[in-house]
Amino acid sequence: MLPPVKAHTEYFTYRLKKRELLHMTPTLEEELARSGIEEGFMLVSAMHVTAGVFVNADESGLHSDIWKWLEGLAPSGVDYKHHRTGEDNGDAHLKSLLIHHEVIVPITKRRLDLGTWQRVFYAEFDGERSKRVLVKVMGT
Amino acid sequence: MLPPVKAHTEYFTYRLKKRELLHMTPTLEEELARSGIEEGFMLVSAMHVTAGVFVNADESGLHSDIWKWLEGLAPSGVDYKHHRTGEDNGDAHLKSLLIHHEVIVPITKRRLDLGTWQRVFYAEFDGERSKRVLVKVMGT
Amino acid sequence: MLPPVKAHTEYFTYRLKKRELLHMTPTLEEELARSGIEEGFMLVSAMHVTAGVFVNADESGLHSDIWKWLEGLAPSGVDYKHHRTGEDNGDAHLKSLLIHHEVIVPITKRRLDLGTWQRVFYAEFDGERSKRVLVKVMGT
Repeated sequence: MLPPVKAHTEYFTYRLKKRELLHMTPTLEEELARSGIEEGFMLVSAMHVTAGVFVNADESGLHSDIWKWLEGLAPSGVDYKHHRTGEDNGDAHLKSLLIHHEVIVPITKRRLDLGTWQRVFYAEFDGERSKRVLVKVMGT
Repeated sequence: MLPPVKAHTEYFTYRLKKRELLHMTPTLEEELARSGIEEGFMLVSAMHVTAGVFVNADESGLHSDIWKWLEGLAPSGVDYKHHRTGEDNGDAHLKSLLIHHEVIVPITKRRLDLGTWQRVFYAEFDGERSKRVLVKVMGT
Repeated sequence: MLPPVKAHTEYFTYRLKKRELLHMTPTLEEELARSGIEEGFMLVSAMHVTAGVFVNADESGLHSDIWKWLEGLAPSGVDYKHHRTGEDNGDAHLKSLLIHHEVIVPITKRRLDLGTWQRVFYAEFDGERSKRVLVKVMGT
């Protein structure tokens, strides 16, 4: 008989600077081992509306390009209507929409089934306070 | 023994105006209760190529900013090649690609496992006809 | 008793030209049939950091519009810092972030549960070498 499904959930708290990237792949590998799940899906999801999670390469020049690009497409220093609430982070909301707040990582044979250059990053668009990332694995 | 997996699917039909947002979180909470699922993933997916689903804050000023931003990055009033088919909604397709048509919401202990400010929205980029949103929960 | 969960994984290898789209829906339908899964989620995920997977319409004029739009928002011919590594594909990384590298397709009653005009595409932003797309179905 095929095995029944398991779900495993963990929350990670980070306090990063504005426009800081956190490489999460090693943390995700550890959490997968803890889950005991061999086949399934891992959701990595920022629990905030001014942060993002994405998959791309771990190369510092590229990371500089990404920040510059995000600032061009979703600029700070604009008089956003959102700022009438007293906030000043309208650009961080738009950057979060552009990059997205979550990814699904496939799990195959007890491993994150990523390509050679694929790494998972948390991106902080606002910063200077504690924020949470949810990691949930479901599978067998 | 661990419980076997369940899947629960529902389709919601909406007829919205062009550039209207629909806050879906309360509907999703009800549907989750109906599913009886405690641990798993909920997919919220627009079944159309000129609509989007996203997670961000429920703040009207921010929503105005989002619409203005989307119009800047994927403008209407452009002579898109897609319009040679008789359509006039090329911008709605691009806005759909930018925002994306779906999100996964984690389900933990019978609840949508969202952060304090995270809400789920359906975004209509074309409008004036009935459109469907699929909600599918899989878990235990 | 409810059925236990199954997972089914396949890898597809493609060698496409720079800025080529591959319509994957027929391939995904075949792979779903092979999996025997009736209810669940299918992840379609590029295993590369210069490629994307998206859902939109299969219309050639629209596809031209998409490429032009992507080139406008994530242009080639820019002196990206990433190019100091010897690469010349900085724009392909940004296009991948914009379009995203993966989608989840809901599976209902043994079928891809897509709307009338929804099709799944792999987008090659760099090209001229073999690249892999992972398709993983989990469900019952």
